[in-house]
Amino acid sequence: MTGSTRYRLDLAYDGAAFHGWASQDGLRTVQGELEHWLTTVLRLESPAQLTVAGRTDAGVHARGQVAHVDLPDDDLPSDAYADRLTRRLARVLPADLTVRSVTVAPPGFDARFSAIWRRYVYRLAETTGDPLHRGLVHRVGRPLDVEAMDAAAAALVGLHDFVAFCKAKPFATTIRRVLDCGVTRVDAGELAGTVAVEIRADAFCHSMVRSVVGALVGVGLGQHDAAWLERHVSAAQRARDIKVMPARGLVLEEVGYPADDQLAARAAQARTRRDEQPLPLQPAIEEQP
Amino acid sequence: MTGSTRYRLDLAYDGAAFHGWASQDGLRTVQGELEHWLTTVLRLESPAQLTVAGRTDAGVHARGQVAHVDLPDDDLPSDAYADRLTRRLARVLPADLTVRSVTVAPPGFDARFSAIWRRYVYRLAETTGDPLHRGLVHRVGRPLDVEAMDAAAAALVGLHDFVAFCKAKPFATTIRRVLDCGVTRVDAGELAGTVAVEIRADAFCHSMVRSVVGALVGVGLGQHDAAWLERHVSAAQRARDIKVMPARGLVLEEVGYPADDQLAARAAQARTRRDEQPLPLQPAIEEQP
Repeated sequence: MTGSTRYRLDLAYDGAAFHGWASQDGLRTVQGELEHWLTTVLRLESPAQLTVAGRTDAGVHARGQVAHVDLPDDDLPSDAYADRLTRRLARVLPADLTVRSVTVAPPGFDARFSAIWRRYVYRLAETTGDPLHRGLVHRVGRPLDVEAMDAAAAALVGLHDFVAFCKAKPFATTIRRVLDCGVTRVDAGELAGTVAVEIRADAFCHSMVRSVVGALVGVGLGQHDAAWLERHVSAAQRARDIKVMPARGLVLEEVGYPADDQLAARAAQARTRRDEQPLPLQPAIEEQP
Repeated sequence: MTGSTRYRLDLAYDGAAFHGWASQDGLRTVQGELEHWLTTVLRLESPAQLTVAGRTDAGVHARGQVAHVDLPDDDLPSDAYADRLTRRLARVLPADLTVRSVTVAPPGFDARFSAIWRRYVYRLAETTGDPLHRGLVHRVGRPLDVEAMDAAAAALVGLHDFVAFCKAKPFATTIRRVLDCGVTRVDAGELAGTVAVEIRADAFCHSMVRSVVGALVGVGLGQHDAAWLERHVSAAQRARDIKVMPARGLVLEEVGYPADDQLAARAAQARTRRDEQPLPLQPAIEEQP
């Protein structure tokens, strides 16, 4: 009898040429591409099936994406199997998709349900921008009041119903806990001069990050004030005056997990919430950002 | 009678889709693209003609490129004319070419002959690399001994005949003054984990930067030692055991000019050297790096 082992994959991709994470017939997606190569290099009898921490939309990038896959056991010890898989994937994957490492997942690990937070950064250029980074910086083309944006962002922190910022999905809660949200002008290094909106939350509902950035840009351009943003945080329905920003500026930078001994408990808790009808002010798991 | 005014252009480009700086019939080049748009937006009777500080090769990027152009005087004061030109170019230029600013050039300014140094950075990834920056980082795929590279780089500094590192050109000197050259591992920010080779010189001969990096990578991989590199610095002919690195990793980061009151003198000095037969140990002006 053969068992299976769960592996954790840490990966990065340039989202420009992908129709998002999730497999779609006839379209190039990150999941589709990666499952194809896993199945091919490992000569699996049944296709590999990935579970991911953050199901990114078309065009959204990832630098710290995490996924898991269960693979049938091999003669090789699982650590050595993971190392070999890392090397093999490096040889075959396209230039816009990198699996940084494959490691044996700790007991109870679930890339999606064990995650306790996701951190996204959205990058903006006020002026003409740097052509070398145009693939990951959205050009606003006008000056932004970064201090006003950062001050307004404080209203987003905490447990709130973000329905105003979310694409509606039946029977799904739009309550999320934002752990921190800040806006800074990058003053050194490769992206000096750009404006970065950073947001970390237990999870995000569909289009939430890009709507939050759209609202903050509205503040930065002087079209709205902090009180306007604050009203939306406690609104009862989707806002019509918030722009959803283009995917290009958005990067999933990092996913947080608890200590190994809490992985299983966290996954069980998140799975239960997923199955329940949404309750008021109860946080949920990740949807598409 | 109408006079003309000299303007300085500060520009940046992603070199991937350009066949280098210099105009070539039927090929997309930075000079060709920019002269076309200058001529078009200004409705010039005779085509605009640009002079550039660093004539980059096909695929080489630039962030701090400088050029000048002489334009017939307009009814508008030249400062206002420059501002209007900056805005107009921003509207028409393609996404991989940005003119950050157009300014009235100080008296005696010549983008090519007044320049006193050029600074290039070549970026290397040891492992799989970040797919978001694959357009400007060359992947070596193996660990590099950065300390050995940095130590070996010291031999390049000073006034030397770099014939071993240059593509030969008849009647042209290959003597250059390297002001500094260092190799560091980037430990923070957007390009954390990459290795940067930085070199600043009065000028570079054709393929010099990419050959210098190729030699340093040979040291970093343990294929050669510092003494080998030092021998090449005083060699009498082109080296056969130095790899010319791919264009993708190379960025012209910055061009240095003297104080305004020394611009004309520097240009006259550089032009004289250009016209003379090369003399031993006499520095020259920029060729293609």
